[in-house]
Amino acid sequence: MKDQYLLEKAKALFPKLLETTAVPTETIEPIQEGQAVCAKSAPHYKERALRNGEKVFLDFGNHLTGYLTIRMASEGAHPDAPVWLKVRFAERLDEFFEDAAAYQGWISKSWIQEEQIHIDVLPAEYSFERRFAFRYVEIEVLDISSKFALVITDAQCRAVSSADDDALLPYQAKEERFSQLDRIAVRTLHECMQRVFEDGPKRDRRLWMGDLRIEALANYETYRQNNLVKQGLYLFAGDTLPDGQVSANMFIEPEIEADDVAMFDYSLFFVAALRDYVRQTGDDEALRDLYKTAMRQIELASHRLNEEGVIADSDQLGWCFLDWNLNLNKQAGAHGVYLYALKAAMELSELYGDFEEQARLEIELEERKRDAQRVLWDDEQGVFVSGAQRQISWASQCFLILGDAVSREEGIQLLERMETRKDAEQMVTPYMYHHYVEALLYLGMEEKAKQVLMQYWGSMAEQGADTFWELYNPKAPSESPYGGTIVLSYCHAWSCAPAYFIRKYQW
Amino acid sequence: MKDQYLLEKAKALFPKLLETTAVPTETIEPIQEGQAVCAKSAPHYKERALRNGEKVFLDFGNHLTGYLTIRMASEGAHPDAPVWLKVRFAERLDEFFEDAAAYQGWISKSWIQEEQIHIDVLPAEYSFERRFAFRYVEIEVLDISSKFALVITDAQCRAVSSADDDALLPYQAKEERFSQLDRIAVRTLHECMQRVFEDGPKRDRRLWMGDLRIEALANYETYRQNNLVKQGLYLFAGDTLPDGQVSANMFIEPEIEADDVAMFDYSLFFVAALRDYVRQTGDDEALRDLYKTAMRQIELASHRLNEEGVIADSDQLGWCFLDWNLNLNKQAGAHGVYLYALKAAMELSELYGDFEEQARLEIELEERKRDAQRVLWDDEQGVFVSGAQRQISWASQCFLILGDAVSREEGIQLLERMETRKDAEQMVTPYMYHHYVEALLYLGMEEKAKQVLMQYWGSMAEQGADTFWELYNPKAPSESPYGGTIVLSYCHAWSCAPAYFIRKYQW
Repeated sequence: MKDQYLLEKAKALFPKLLETTAVPTETIEPIQEGQAVCAKSAPHYKERALRNGEKVFLDFGNHLTGYLTIRMASEGAHPDAPVWLKVRFAERLDEFFEDAAAYQGWISKSWIQEEQIHIDVLPAEYSFERRFAFRYVEIEVLDISSKFALVITDAQCRAVSSADDDALLPYQAKEERFSQLDRIAVRTLHECMQRVFEDGPKRDRRLWMGDLRIEALANYETYRQNNLVKQGLYLFAGDTLPDGQVSANMFIEPEIEADDVAMFDYSLFFVAALRDYVRQTGDDEALRDLYKTAMRQIELASHRLNEEGVIADSDQLGWCFLDWNLNLNKQAGAHGVYLYALKAAMELSELYGDFEEQARLEIELEERKRDAQRVLWDDEQGVFVSGAQRQISWASQCFLILGDAVSREEGIQLLERMETRKDAEQMVTPYMYHHYVEALLYLGMEEKAKQVLMQYWGSMAEQGADTFWELYNPKAPSESPYGGTIVLSYCHAWSCAPAYFIRKYQW
Repeated sequence: MKDQYLLEKAKALFPKLLETTAVPTETIEPIQEGQAVCAKSAPHYKERALRNGEKVFLDFGNHLTGYLTIRMASEGAHPDAPVWLKVRFAERLDEFFEDAAAYQGWISKSWIQEEQIHIDVLPAEYSFERRFAFRYVEIEVLDISSKFALVITDAQCRAVSSADDDALLPYQAKEERFSQLDRIAVRTLHECMQRVFEDGPKRDRRLWMGDLRIEALANYETYRQNNLVKQGLYLFAGDTLPDGQVSANMFIEPEIEADDVAMFDYSLFFVAALRDYVRQTGDDEALRDLYKTAMRQIELASHRLNEEGVIADSDQLGWCFLDWNLNLNKQAGAHGVYLYALKAAMELSELYGDFEEQARLEIELEERKRDAQRVLWDDEQGVFVSGAQRQISWASQCFLILGDAVSREEGIQLLERMETRKDAEQMVTPYMYHHYVEALLYLGMEEKAKQVLMQYWGSMAEQGADTFWELYNPKAPSESPYGGTIVLSYCHAWSCAPAYFIRKYQW
């Protein structure tokens, strides 16, 4: 359902992309030792004469999102045939040890950053028209005539981002290890800031509601390019599903269009993201324009309440996201998100001057909190349970804590109790860990929050992350809900929590 | 050894490429029945919604050399991932049944006309930057998201050639089957006429001396774009090997450069090609400019004479071409080409007014003819033999006949005798068959010449050839000296003999 008024405003907010040029900082050779992958230094790529099957690996020193240009020449006799190359782009070295042909997951192979090109005439300059997300580039000669060898004489990347590094708020963490996490998180955000807040520059390269909310929070503490948040909110409000539900994500090419998929929690996070934005900016125009869309999300969500007053469970895959854990039952977490969104909606109503609605929402919130306690709380075990199987998960506890379904004291005890529940469904994404840290801070457990942030994101940093990853399960690092890790995004918006928490709480 | 004066003249003769637009005439499905491949009609490509692994085959109705553009759209939900395509270009349907990955021949795989592309946004228009030679195009979806299907909404080829069809001399053969061969041969020539006379638009796409001579002969009877012959001759003379030998072939990109390879017979055919050109055009400027280069080829060739007065044999692969038959001993044929070139040189000397040289060449020719008779002729068997193993081949007889090493009557008897020599090395290329037909006509055996032309080239036509092939051995149709047929060129300059013979002899 398109609203041209809102879409026009969104279009006016598309940012200019800033370009920088990056060149390889080193020629490397990736090596695998057991599970570990590292790089050793290799002879400079310009000094290699590549024959059949030979390859070079370029390291650009940091994560880039952009357009690669390579220059090539020949050595030996005059080239008498084209050169056939395979070029692979990798965000992490590990990707070079994966066999793209072996990937059979459900996410399209077309996301794998691998190209085959033919060069008819040497010397040549070849510019890839497609944008890639990478730190490393492998150039392999698939075939070359025996009469000559190929020399890569130059490589450079026209890197793009709408994040203006000159505008980045300076921040010095109290501890260097927090500074490191902040730097990586800022880079993650930087790379995802393109014409929209993308979820990841490798995949899916588009605006997802769940990611937008988290990127916006990190943005307020870093680049403060608030118009990009505003643009995102207007885009989501500017085209919704037919019933007015905010879509899970937006396409902007070839033209703006909402995906036909919505997720219960993502739609509700529109309300929270608008609340955050208005809090941050005091932008009354946005409040006036988008208030109705926000309230509609609450209304639609309430239609999912069952006769017991809690959000009804569903078998439909993807009805609610919460975390990329396929075993996770979403009911209790969804109810938590509903409560959380009700609070945000109340705040918006008050700002809007819609006090009648505010009062109505307050009643709804109180009743639904009681229903959560009554229906979802397992008194014997002292935890929230979810679904017919009464599943215990971290996600359920965190979202219900954020939704005020328990008091602060109860929440603290609940999370401490969870530490002993090894049978609980774990968290697998930085997105879910973001909410865990948020819940800890909400309960005032700042030391524990710092510890979790340091352990979880710090572990990625220790493994050499230049940007934070889409998925990271410390207990199963090679796990992928997509059926293979080669399609995973290793620079993912929803993982930029450290920049938000470290700066906001001045760690 | 570059001669800037000659190269500048060559550069001034580069033709303009003429462009035409071609569209698919049919959507087909190639089918293989035993050894035979044919096409059945398939639903129109525009009406297909292609999902994972599906493909369409487009038939453009005739051989094209040019640049393909496809337009694409999606069907179903909004595309949520790139589309990954494989596009194969084929001159013959048979190529679609070959597995490019299985090819392990010595010619570079990079010639295989197969591309992989990713389309990020649909609808899209994709123009291949590379030039391809094809009649058929296969578009296969290597991977696509399950949310949508791909529709090819349009396909067209910007076909290029420097042959001007408006200038083509009209010709109506006495028999329709000769008209058909003429049409196919003219198309072959048309497709090879690019910025230079290419050997083949698929591979190697450059000026080879052996091909140039034959293209020039066909050109005089068809397009009469004689400046393209002149350009070719100036290119060969403009950059030679250090000792002045005409190279086997010339590169023109990125700049004009002779290949570092020469072949005994190809260098000598420069003399014949110049003689043919001057005969045809009376171009005195070219005679003055290129005479020295021609005479140098004779001189260099004479250095290869052994103490018996015949061209010395060699173990070096490729020292002399004659035919693409790896078993063929080249000595006797090479001597025949030397004699043939001496005759052409004599004619050039006379035109040039260099009567002293003419007289000297005449003595040389007569002595070397006698030496051929004495050394290469096997009196007992009544055939020419070649090399230490005294090999009997069609190539040896044909080239020695063309070199006047036998009288007309002897030649006729010799070729009739050869019909009974089933042990003789056969001919495998249209290039060698051209010289066989030429020898037959030289001996006045016109009916036999017509019969050979009809049988050999007619057999390709019967197999659906749109253009004549680089190789065709009726006794082993799938033979390839390159170790695989997928790199073969099915539109090859040296095969355009029918247009020359049919028109010249008015069949």
